[in-house]
Amino acid sequence: MRTALRLAEGGPATGVNPRVGCVILDAEGRTIAEGFHRGAGTAHAEVDALSSLPEGGARGATAVVTLEPCNHWGLTGPCSEALIAAGVARVVYAVADPGRHSSGGAERLREAGVEVIGGVLADEAERFLGDWLTAARLGRPHITVKWASTLDGRTAAADGTSRWITGAAARQRVHEQREASDAIVVGTGTVLADDPSLTARGDAGELLPKQPTPVVVGTRAVPKDAAVFRHPHPVIFEGTHDLHEVVADLHQRGFRRVYVEGGPTLASAFVAAGLVDEFAIYLAPALLGGPKLALGDIGADTIGDQRKLRILDVERLGVDLYLRAVPVPTSHQEA
Amino acid sequence: MRTALRLAEGGPATGVNPRVGCVILDAEGRTIAEGFHRGAGTAHAEVDALSSLPEGGARGATAVVTLEPCNHWGLTGPCSEALIAAGVARVVYAVADPGRHSSGGAERLREAGVEVIGGVLADEAERFLGDWLTAARLGRPHITVKWASTLDGRTAAADGTSRWITGAAARQRVHEQREASDAIVVGTGTVLADDPSLTARGDAGELLPKQPTPVVVGTRAVPKDAAVFRHPHPVIFEGTHDLHEVVADLHQRGFRRVYVEGGPTLASAFVAAGLVDEFAIYLAPALLGGPKLALGDIGADTIGDQRKLRILDVERLGVDLYLRAVPVPTSHQEA
Repeated sequence: MRTALRLAEGGPATGVNPRVGCVILDAEGRTIAEGFHRGAGTAHAEVDALSSLPEGGARGATAVVTLEPCNHWGLTGPCSEALIAAGVARVVYAVADPGRHSSGGAERLREAGVEVIGGVLADEAERFLGDWLTAARLGRPHITVKWASTLDGRTAAADGTSRWITGAAARQRVHEQREASDAIVVGTGTVLADDPSLTARGDAGELLPKQPTPVVVGTRAVPKDAAVFRHPHPVIFEGTHDLHEVVADLHQRGFRRVYVEGGPTLASAFVAAGLVDEFAIYLAPALLGGPKLALGDIGADTIGDQRKLRILDVERLGVDLYLRAVPVPTSHQEA
Repeated sequence: MRTALRLAEGGPATGVNPRVGCVILDAEGRTIAEGFHRGAGTAHAEVDALSSLPEGGARGATAVVTLEPCNHWGLTGPCSEALIAAGVARVVYAVADPGRHSSGGAERLREAGVEVIGGVLADEAERFLGDWLTAARLGRPHITVKWASTLDGRTAAADGTSRWITGAAARQRVHEQREASDAIVVGTGTVLADDPSLTARGDAGELLPKQPTPVVVGTRAVPKDAAVFRHPHPVIFEGTHDLHEVVADLHQRGFRRVYVEGGPTLASAFVAAGLVDEFAIYLAPALLGGPKLALGDIGADTIGDQRKLRILDVERLGVDLYLRAVPVPTSHQEA
C-alpha cells in the first residue's frame, strides 16, 4: 500500500479527480504492474496498471489500490468491472470512495467473487487525499481562509496603508498556498482597495508553473483595468453575496481547493456561514490599533457563540508566525 | 562568579533592591566566606560575607560579587568602604551598578588601591538582574503589558461576556506572572466592568505566598464593595491619565516589576506612551469578531507608525498560545 501511495503522488495535486495509485501483485506477492491516475479523462490507476500487463496477465493477482475502485461510468469505464474482467482474485484498498455516483465498487467486486479488503493504511491515505475527500464528502470544495494581521488583529493602519505587514518568508508561503489551490477568492472590496494580481509568484516575482483561477465575489463593479484581468486565467465573477451559492458554483466548475484571501468582509462571511475547513493565519510581530481588522462581525454576540479552532501547527516564518488551524465543530456552526 | 550568582538567587525576587551574591576567596583561591543580600534594610552581600570572617580575616583576599559594590549611604553603609576597611586586595564583579546614587564603587575601590575587575559573566548576571537593571537604568519600573485575546484580537463577545477565553494553563501562567510582579495595574474601567480581585492564586484558587499590590489608574469612581478592596494589600489609586506620572509614582514607591492587566484603554495608552518593556500575549484558538478589542487606538495612523515587536518565545499552554515579545525601538517610540 505504501508503494501505491507513493505512485499516487505522481498525479496532479489539484483538480476534479483524486490522486490514486495501484500496484498489482502476482500470487507470490511479487509486483507485476504499477499505475497511477494522471488526471481527468485519463485512465484510472487500476486500468493504468492493468494496461501494462499482457492479456490474462492479472489472472489470480492481487490489486492494491489507495482508493476503493470506482463503480461509475464517467469519462472512463468503472474500475471494478475492469478488475473483474482481468480476473483479479483479490482487491486491497485504503479509503472507501465517498462519491455519490462512484461508490459501491467493493460491493460489485464481492458480488463477482473477488476477495475485498478495505481500510489498509486508511489514515495515511486519508491525509494524503485530504482536500479531495472533503470535497467528495461535503459536496463542495475544501475551503482555506487566509489572513495576515498584526498581533492585535489589524491588517492595515487607519489610513489603509499595509505594505508590508508580513515579511518575505510569510509572503512566499502564501504564494505556495495559492499555487496549491484551484481558485483564489476575493471580494470586490479587495479588488477596489488593493488591485491584487491574484497570481502565484516565486521569490523573484516570476509566475509559478500552476496558477489558481481568480474568483471575485460581490456585486460592486470592478474597473476594466484591474490587475486581475491580466491573470493567466480568466476571472470568474460571482455576483452574489450568498456564499453557499458561490461554493456550489465553484464545486460545479471542478474546483476542489479554494483559497479565500480577503478582505475582512468576505473572510467574516465565510466564518459566519460555517464554510471554512482550514485557517491560514499569518501574524506579524507588530501592533497597529485602529479600525482595520482582519475579521469583522461573525455573528458572535455572546461568548457562547465564539468559533473555536484547533491550532494544528505553529511555525516561525522569518519574524512572523504562521498558524494552521481548523474549526472545532460546535452546535453554533453550520459545517 | 557562578557561585556568587547562585548565592544571589537566595534573595527576594521582587522589591527595591537587587539580588546580589558575594564569595570571598583567600590568596590561594579557596572560598573563605559567602554572602547574599536578603532585601531592603539588611546587609548587602559583601557585608554579609565579610561578617562571617574574624577581624582581619579578609586581609589580602579577593571579593567576587555579582554587582559592582555600592558607593552609597542608604539604609546600610557603602560596600566599597566596607571592603576597603576589611583590607580586601581585589574585587571582581559582573555588572556595573547603574544607580545614580550608588554607582562609583569601582572608582572608590581603585582610589584606595584595590585591584578591580568588572564584566565577569556580565551577560549571565544581566539576565539574572533583568527587571532590576531596567528599573535602575530607566528610572522607572520594568513594565509588562498582558492581554488575552482570540486569534482575531478580541477579548470578549459583543455583549461583554468573556469567561473564559483562555484555558486553565494560560490562566495559571498569568497568576504566576502576577506573583512575580510588585504591582498589578488596571484601569477603573476594568474594575467597573469585571470587578477583578487582582490576587495571585494557585490551581485551587488559594492565594499564592507573594501578592502584588493592586493599582487602579483613572478618574472614575470605584464602588466601595469592589473585590479589589478585599486584596491582602491596600489598593493604590492613581487618579490621573498621565502614565508617566503613574510610573514615576510606582518607581518612587519602590515597585520594580509592574504587570499591566487591562483593559484595552489602559493597554493602548501604555503602548502609545512607549512605556512597555515586555508583552505577554495569550492567544486563544477562537474567533469572535465584534467590537471588543484587546487593543484600541495606539496613535498609529499610517503603516510607518506600527509598533514593531520581537517575539522571544512562542509556547503552547494547553490549547492556547503564549507569546512573549519585546518592543523593537524605532523613531516613533518614546522609550
